[in-house]
Amino acid sequence: MTQPHSRQDKPSLRIALAGVGTVGAGMIRLLDTNAALVAARAGRKMEIVAVSARERSKNRGVDLTRFDWVDDMTALAARDDIDVVVELVGGADGAALTLARSTIAAGKALVTANKAMIAHHGMELAQAAEGACVSLKFEAAVAGGIPVVKGLREGAAANAIERIYGILNGTSNYILSTMEATGADFAATLAQAQAKGFAEADPTFDVEGIDAAHKLAILAGIAFGSAIDFPAVACEGISRVRAADIAQAKALGYVIRLIAMADVERSADGSDCLLQLVKPCLVPRGHPLAHVTGATNAVVAEGNFSGRLLFQGAGAGDGPTASAVVADLIDVARGESGVPFSVPVAELVPMAAAESGHRTGRTYLRFTVADRPGVLAEITAAMRDAGVSIESLIQQGQVAESEEVLVAMVAHDGPQRNIAHALELLGPSSSLTAPPLVMQIIAG
Amino acid sequence: MTQPHSRQDKPSLRIALAGVGTVGAGMIRLLDTNAALVAARAGRKMEIVAVSARERSKNRGVDLTRFDWVDDMTALAARDDIDVVVELVGGADGAALTLARSTIAAGKALVTANKAMIAHHGMELAQAAEGACVSLKFEAAVAGGIPVVKGLREGAAANAIERIYGILNGTSNYILSTMEATGADFAATLAQAQAKGFAEADPTFDVEGIDAAHKLAILAGIAFGSAIDFPAVACEGISRVRAADIAQAKALGYVIRLIAMADVERSADGSDCLLQLVKPCLVPRGHPLAHVTGATNAVVAEGNFSGRLLFQGAGAGDGPTASAVVADLIDVARGESGVPFSVPVAELVPMAAAESGHRTGRTYLRFTVADRPGVLAEITAAMRDAGVSIESLIQQGQVAESEEVLVAMVAHDGPQRNIAHALELLGPSSSLTAPPLVMQIIAG
Repeated sequence: MTQPHSRQDKPSLRIALAGVGTVGAGMIRLLDTNAALVAARAGRKMEIVAVSARERSKNRGVDLTRFDWVDDMTALAARDDIDVVVELVGGADGAALTLARSTIAAGKALVTANKAMIAHHGMELAQAAEGACVSLKFEAAVAGGIPVVKGLREGAAANAIERIYGILNGTSNYILSTMEATGADFAATLAQAQAKGFAEADPTFDVEGIDAAHKLAILAGIAFGSAIDFPAVACEGISRVRAADIAQAKALGYVIRLIAMADVERSADGSDCLLQLVKPCLVPRGHPLAHVTGATNAVVAEGNFSGRLLFQGAGAGDGPTASAVVADLIDVARGESGVPFSVPVAELVPMAAAESGHRTGRTYLRFTVADRPGVLAEITAAMRDAGVSIESLIQQGQVAESEEVLVAMVAHDGPQRNIAHALELLGPSSSLTAPPLVMQIIAG
Repeated sequence: MTQPHSRQDKPSLRIALAGVGTVGAGMIRLLDTNAALVAARAGRKMEIVAVSARERSKNRGVDLTRFDWVDDMTALAARDDIDVVVELVGGADGAALTLARSTIAAGKALVTANKAMIAHHGMELAQAAEGACVSLKFEAAVAGGIPVVKGLREGAAANAIERIYGILNGTSNYILSTMEATGADFAATLAQAQAKGFAEADPTFDVEGIDAAHKLAILAGIAFGSAIDFPAVACEGISRVRAADIAQAKALGYVIRLIAMADVERSADGSDCLLQLVKPCLVPRGHPLAHVTGATNAVVAEGNFSGRLLFQGAGAGDGPTASAVVADLIDVARGESGVPFSVPVAELVPMAAAESGHRTGRTYLRFTVADRPGVLAEITAAMRDAGVSIESLIQQGQVAESEEVLVAMVAHDGPQRNIAHALELLGPSSSLTAPPLVMQIIAG
């Protein structure tokens, strides 16, 4: 049997911190504020020994003078007075990746909040960690303070996961739920979110779904035992969602959310294929995800024995993300075992991307068209020719200060490839003033 | 550093199963259905070696002939071909407790779904497990398939938990949400729930809040580092909630839920006091718990860095509970370390029960009164004399086939002791035909 405790006189867990932005400062504050309880739960003290960041003199609201300052962060990996390196530098490659590789190679544990690095290099790093028999932990990389990596890797470990889906980007959810509450359009709401610090100066990663795709690719690896395949995520952001779409969805009994979803299907040749998508979708008002507003994240995992599990909480912010980083450190301090992705990397199955055309469901389509006769006939004819059956059609008024008219419709439950075919037929039409917005309707 | 894997040629985890009811049969089905993935994630095979239950011949829908049948379940603890005993017998004392004690004394890991036993004897068993350096795990004892013990013990381990609250009894929630949907009264809904298998023949533990109190006491121990104190839970069930209360709450913008809640407050002498209660409460329709319907459970934990975390899922049932039992077995197989209650039993602090009279909040009160002049004046005078300010008062119609009239009111935010005082003043009154129903209103 293992030794679950025997904590008397255990030496401190000696930590090196690379990157002291808001999350790093939050982690230092957490370890100061909650020092006694963290030590009691970890079974040993936590001690930050050394820190490294770009600017030494920047005011971060925490006292760094008590730690050893290191200019070259890669040097942290080689120090023999360190047990674990916390990487909060960010970026898929560059300094973060170099540090991660050297930390593991030096036989030290690595805790990271870096979703891009894990989404792109998680397999390589996990295999290295397994080979070196060290921990690689990344709870903070997915959904901020929500322990969803642990929830899938351990809490739901007895289940074949049938599907995971959820809201994985707080900025997008903040924008969509603010648009819902105010009736304002995307651009104005984004600008307001940027002014309030809820969106970055360059919001591309958040509003175009890339951040959510990073997180989804990581969760899919754990949930389905599939090799992480970030480039295969079909990714579409929220920048084309208009106030009119939100109003129309509301009238139909839905809200719009940026949904990240993954599941596995058996292909014709018997191999497993992985569907991964990040897309704005219509969520029925009675669904738990419809009530997730602001910068909150939420993940649903459907297990074959557990049924539907929901994990919800703050998806970002210094406090919640620090909470996840230190939870990982406590696991490391407790000597928690197990490979990073629940099964060894060698057993993760590379899965082809699922072809989603045969999937069925109700669909919302919104066309931006020129205000002239015959446009509606052209659209409905294309639908008919592609075998798309229209459940309801709403021609909305003219868009302010433009010649455009919005036409929204809901298509009956049918294969997605028919929708795609209808859009192809309409592709060359001069009646459409912009590419149509197509959103799947999530079933209750 | 620890060895996070090296799983090659690890021997099977050898399991003895005591108690083969619906959960035990579910666990056997799970280990059959998900055998390969459970082995991959656990890093070794799971093998049920021996089973014991009251009736050998009962048809459970699973084949037990492949396991060694043991008539005296206590003998399971002594077998040297067993690594872990799964106790699914139930009951706070008796055979379950005897088996638990002997299993730990024999140096074997114990996994249990027995909330009553952990609520009553968790401290003794955890201390024994710590002394024997074996795992004691009880994820399935709280909230069925939801990994909330893990969520608090590990996922939120970096936080001082400020409050936990939630819906911990599926039967009560099923009854309340069915009453809400149908307008039927408690007795009729309970009978229907019993007919459908959602409530037991003797529903006392579920509908009177005792089952939720067991679970709350366990969660409070983990969340607050307090010694488990089940008798201190202030416990009130849902059997006095009427259809009229639910209708009235709805008109005010609320739903009624059986809420389990615990938090810690600093008393005048500087010591920490623990408030634990299970009571029907009014929950605002915008609150995540208001959307929890049917037999679903949900737990909110508010951490000082994580913020509000929500864990939601199936609170009972063979599949979800088996999912939690096997998650614990996977932790045991992985050599997961750490003491049962997050900190060693010797460090758990015995906390006095918090006196809640100074706590404030809005309150719903419903009186059942005789239909005669002056009753309303009598009630409102008592309120005035106790310093309770009435926000709204609704005199409802006569109760069908009776001489009773229902009077509901909402009291302004004020100390609970004032409400209690008003009820004392009204205590001797012959106008009240039944004890008043008092429900706290949860803030959004």
